[in-house]
Amino acid sequence: MSPVPFARYLAMNKISNIKRYHIAKVYRRDQPVMTRGRYREFYQCDFDIAGQYDPMIPEAECLKIVDEVLSKLEIGEFQVKLNHRLILEGMFAACGAGADQFKTVCSSVDKLDKQPWAEVEDELIKEKGLAKESTEKLGQFVRLREFNQSMGNIELLDKLMQFEELAKNARFKKGVEELKVLVNYCSLFGIESVRFDPSLARGLDYYTGAIYEAVVPKALEGVNLEANGEEQKGLPVGVGSVAAGGRYDELVGNFMAPVGSKGKEKRQDVPCVGISFGIERLFAIMEAKMQIEQLPVRTTETEIFIASAQKNLLQERMKLCKTLWDEGFKVEFAYKANPKLLTQLQYCEDRLIPLALIVGERELQEGVVKLRNVKTRAEQDVALSDLVSTLRSALSS
Amino acid sequence: MSPVPFARYLAMNKISNIKRYHIAKVYRRDQPVMTRGRYREFYQCDFDIAGQYDPMIPEAECLKIVDEVLSKLEIGEFQVKLNHRLILEGMFAACGAGADQFKTVCSSVDKLDKQPWAEVEDELIKEKGLAKESTEKLGQFVRLREFNQSMGNIELLDKLMQFEELAKNARFKKGVEELKVLVNYCSLFGIESVRFDPSLARGLDYYTGAIYEAVVPKALEGVNLEANGEEQKGLPVGVGSVAAGGRYDELVGNFMAPVGSKGKEKRQDVPCVGISFGIERLFAIMEAKMQIEQLPVRTTETEIFIASAQKNLLQERMKLCKTLWDEGFKVEFAYKANPKLLTQLQYCEDRLIPLALIVGERELQEGVVKLRNVKTRAEQDVALSDLVSTLRSALSS
Repeated sequence: MSPVPFARYLAMNKISNIKRYHIAKVYRRDQPVMTRGRYREFYQCDFDIAGQYDPMIPEAECLKIVDEVLSKLEIGEFQVKLNHRLILEGMFAACGAGADQFKTVCSSVDKLDKQPWAEVEDELIKEKGLAKESTEKLGQFVRLREFNQSMGNIELLDKLMQFEELAKNARFKKGVEELKVLVNYCSLFGIESVRFDPSLARGLDYYTGAIYEAVVPKALEGVNLEANGEEQKGLPVGVGSVAAGGRYDELVGNFMAPVGSKGKEKRQDVPCVGISFGIERLFAIMEAKMQIEQLPVRTTETEIFIASAQKNLLQERMKLCKTLWDEGFKVEFAYKANPKLLTQLQYCEDRLIPLALIVGERELQEGVVKLRNVKTRAEQDVALSDLVSTLRSALSS
Repeated sequence: MSPVPFARYLAMNKISNIKRYHIAKVYRRDQPVMTRGRYREFYQCDFDIAGQYDPMIPEAECLKIVDEVLSKLEIGEFQVKLNHRLILEGMFAACGAGADQFKTVCSSVDKLDKQPWAEVEDELIKEKGLAKESTEKLGQFVRLREFNQSMGNIELLDKLMQFEELAKNARFKKGVEELKVLVNYCSLFGIESVRFDPSLARGLDYYTGAIYEAVVPKALEGVNLEANGEEQKGLPVGVGSVAAGGRYDELVGNFMAPVGSKGKEKRQDVPCVGISFGIERLFAIMEAKMQIEQLPVRTTETEIFIASAQKNLLQERMKLCKTLWDEGFKVEFAYKANPKLLTQLQYCEDRLIPLALIVGERELQEGVVKLRNVKTRAEQDVALSDLVSTLRSALSS
């Protein structure tokens, strides 16, 4: 949903050139089916590039971002489905669907990832008024990825071009040529997750060129969804579209008054391309993964805990803490005048704080402090003069 | 205003122990005087520590945070005024103001930073019903910092204790003792900005202990406010309270039902202390400072721009960009197939991007790339094999 507010922002502020990311709440305009996890208010992270550039270069950067983000989040195997509005238009036209039927045919085809073709075809005939011979032809086109799972993107594009009725459609041809350029840029960027899929048909209200959607087919596999009520949260196993976007070249112009003298008005368009991540869905997948793997989770960023071995060492702990804060370390200590040593060390273990520094009377006299590796429980004396460098190397190892 | 929603959050989620920061919009409940820069909706950054701890340790951490944040933002000289509710209660009681008059007397005294004492005294007599002898005594107490600008905090606290009618008030004494502990902790933390001021009397609706407020006396000095409409934004020169907070031990309990059997109900309090920064005010001060100093401002985080010296090098630029992105550098390149070299270098200079890498045919043949320091315009060839380490050291220097 986010291209709309972004486009309005560009139009209101007369911005024709920007690259930005944004994490915030977005709001759906339509009536979401809330039992299926579609909320009216939710968090999203958007990347968008606005401006007049050479074809497919900003698209490639958006796909690089999806690829990099989803790889780094370690949510398991994912794919980024890729398609193009002109390819969809060409396919539908070749099947005899009129331009006025474009959106409604799209909305049926878009259900192919959740419904079998027979149901989609039934809808196309009974509700959308397509003839059986049209849907049969359409099925051949949009199911081409389904029947050629392991085929390369360029090969699949070429295979579609072998249909004579598609090859002679100028819009379709342009769509194919653009995607070939984009697929080439993706390999330059080292992106392996992109998969051309002629059945992808989403968000076509405003997308004008390339469109893409990231899916995590095995997300939540093995999670007991019913037990923790996840199903109500709308994340059935194997669905999980976690990011989506595309090119929307005409949206900004919608929000701007035409310029020029009367009768010669010109629309001012700002070409845009973007990608939006569904943050709550990604969190749900990551939480489920942690639940399955039973990994301990750090709930604090504290790197070093300053503990005391005897009573009356609060001032020493505070002084040491100041020194380390000033050096940029993430440090905490117990807010008690005389905490017990075991309680302090237990706190470190519970919170997975990697290092503890133990201040004691003997140590103070000798000008040292005891450094404890919380996990291995190994301890060593460190001279105060060496403390900062010792901590830095202990934390970076 | 933020302690209220935070306290409600703790009560609703039954949290008795947390330390957190939060940057978000907050909303005023009252009728703000918008012409004086008091908006109903604005951004704030809050730090809060909730939990049962030994006295004044969390307070010291809050003051360390203010001191560190305001120092690092380089907004110029600042002070953190410090006072205590019990000190105010003791002073007012010693002047004959009843406990029921506490809040209303506070609100008059709180104006002392903007109005002369004569006006405040007038208000106390005519509107708050205090006798002239009461206000004279009160003036002695609350103006003590005004008359002893250079006195140390401990000395000023001792000086107040020399008034017999204050020294015999148990609450006052407790307030002084607590502040002395806090002032000591502040020196352990190396905080020099804290300044005990008995005239500070803010937010006493919910604060129960230490209170503090950071002011930037010379903020906006030299800025032509009228010229850029800043005055309407509510930032008269020399005011600029940019952070404030204190201890609020009873607020969480307000949102919780009492526990225990009927007739023996017990309130469950969660002691809290916090500090809130006014982000918009800090931004206004920083922007004004940049305006005065005419410093160039980097509007992008890009560290390295990949330029091309000849045509048809887009693919080479993209490959190099991928390599550097994967190494974690912040890199961009022109989204054009054949941009002009001068345009690309001008882009780097305009945006203060520190480094440019120039890809050319000769360089490609020789296995090198030209590294340009955008500021000095010095150029050197770097072998592709040494590129990452050369860039890392160039950026860290």
